[in-house]
Amino acid sequence: MQNLRFDANGLIPTVIQDATSKDVLMVAWMNADSLQKTIESGETWFWSRSRQELWHKGETSGNIQKVVEIRYDCDGDTLLVLVNPAGPACHTGNSTCFYRRLEN
Amino acid sequence: MQNLRFDANGLIPTVIQDATSKDVLMVAWMNADSLQKTIESGETWFWSRSRQELWHKGETSGNIQKVVEIRYDCDGDTLLVLVNPAGPACHTGNSTCFYRRLEN
Repeated sequence: MQNLRFDANGLIPTVIQDATSKDVLMVAWMNADSLQKTIESGETWFWSRSRQELWHKGETSGNIQKVVEIRYDCDGDTLLVLVNPAGPACHTGNSTCFYRRLEN
Repeated sequence: MQNLRFDANGLIPTVIQDATSKDVLMVAWMNADSLQKTIESGETWFWSRSRQELWHKGETSGNIQKVVEIRYDCDGDTLLVLVNPAGPACHTGNSTCFYRRLEN
């Protein structure tokens, strides 16, 4: 944890990747608390910037994400969490939040 | 572009993924200018927060990233760019910036 650099708001962007398909599922923010809960529980926890509260992914939908591995980047300012998801990552029902392609 | 939400600093976090291996290579920040240059050139451009300048990935190292596809998430506040990299994404020489695993 001491290798990580949280931003001025105490947050670190976190990429969630499906451990099997390797699809990028979502990007969310963690603080030290949510990272600790993620490590301890083996399921993803985030910090909701809009609701200003800890958020256990799948708590209402059931679509939890089981943690396979947590990685961090060369600068220590981004996390990559490989997961086995119990269902779609996106609230729209899509497996990934990145279901749209940008038109040129 | 009008579907995208840049933050208070005019930036949007961008995940770079290898289009072939599907490895997550790096996360960097784009502003509207760097996104425009990325679209026009077909190679990744970012905004360097430390240097406060546009940054053409690979300009000095030669390790440019050819854009295959640009996707955006359900909130419109994160980009995912699939690329064919000419070399390692990381300044350490590792193919991905996420070469370290967080110890529990």
